[in-house]
Amino acid sequence: MAKSIITISREFGSGGRTIGRKVAETLGIPFYDRELIEMSAEQGGFAADFVQNTEQKVKSKFFHSLAFGYMNSGLGSGAASLSDRLFAVTSDIIRKLAAEGPCVIVGRCADYVLSERQDVLDVFIYSDLAHKVRRAVTEYGLDPDKAEAEVKKTDKYRANHYDYYTDRTWGAKENYHLMIDSGELGIDAAANLIVAAYNAGK
Amino acid sequence: MAKSIITISREFGSGGRTIGRKVAETLGIPFYDRELIEMSAEQGGFAADFVQNTEQKVKSKFFHSLAFGYMNSGLGSGAASLSDRLFAVTSDIIRKLAAEGPCVIVGRCADYVLSERQDVLDVFIYSDLAHKVRRAVTEYGLDPDKAEAEVKKTDKYRANHYDYYTDRTWGAKENYHLMIDSGELGIDAAANLIVAAYNAGK
Repeated sequence: MAKSIITISREFGSGGRTIGRKVAETLGIPFYDRELIEMSAEQGGFAADFVQNTEQKVKSKFFHSLAFGYMNSGLGSGAASLSDRLFAVTSDIIRKLAAEGPCVIVGRCADYVLSERQDVLDVFIYSDLAHKVRRAVTEYGLDPDKAEAEVKKTDKYRANHYDYYTDRTWGAKENYHLMIDSGELGIDAAANLIVAAYNAGK
Repeated sequence: MAKSIITISREFGSGGRTIGRKVAETLGIPFYDRELIEMSAEQGGFAADFVQNTEQKVKSKFFHSLAFGYMNSGLGSGAASLSDRLFAVTSDIIRKLAAEGPCVIVGRCADYVLSERQDVLDVFIYSDLAHKVRRAVTEYGLDPDKAEAEVKKTDKYRANHYDYYTDRTWGAKENYHLMIDSGELGIDAAANLIVAAYNAGK
């Protein structure tokens, strides 16, 4: 059926965020990434900086031990950890954004959160390590000596976060409709392929 | 860099073979699938029927116990099993076909066989079970009561065969540049995406 929403999951350094923005610009639809975090922070009463530092980190004893009040989440303030409540808030926001109309959403397990909708195109962007490290240095300004470790660590965080909250496997084909090696095919070609896949259902 | 060869790996019932043929027709380049087997059979001295029955089956004690003469493979007629020798013959053919110029090759671990070339676009076509079973019944004429079991069994064979000969994991993203859910996106859209990816490097 015709697709309305595009979710993009991506490895760190694959350019998935840039690709998502290009897709949104080409299609003339909203793009959500950091905006999403800030909106969720605002709605949930979390401080934006804190949310950014917490997002996509695996749960830790520290977070578990926190008794952080979040009365509007529907989860109460008891057993659910801060990380769980953050996930609930972010998921609510994603569902509301999707209900408003066509958009591109990067990260935040959006493919899983919106899995009951039939009008979502789920995309995964990946690349080999060399391409990711190069991009992390040239585009994100990471220290060349530390970039490889940072890429690996960030992807491990993302995989852990996704697998924990979804009971799926991050980057496994059954969770996505289109998977693109952006290192091999390039950023622009990847964006064009997503646009073509999105329009194919129209 | 510019792509010359396209390899397509596919789940049974995903329509990967049909997609590959459409891509080849659109690009005006040769398509190899069964032709490949027949060529390999002819070159290697195997009977065509026998090759077709043996291809993509996991090795069995029966095959191991065969002492099948194949003097031109470079492997001799000793320790290598029939399955190993078939793989060697097919791989030789794939490399020769690729050396002749642009083409589409479906199956036969071609992505692995050609992995030293930089001008190969490796594609994986997949789908959910329901789509694959439906296609197996409507397109391949399988008994509806047996189609699901046949789909699962064939995919298991393909995975076993690929993993055994390549030390890679069939359907894992690191082995492909583009992965398409043909059940969700459709046969024509899948073919168009592959053509677009191929032409993007030109």
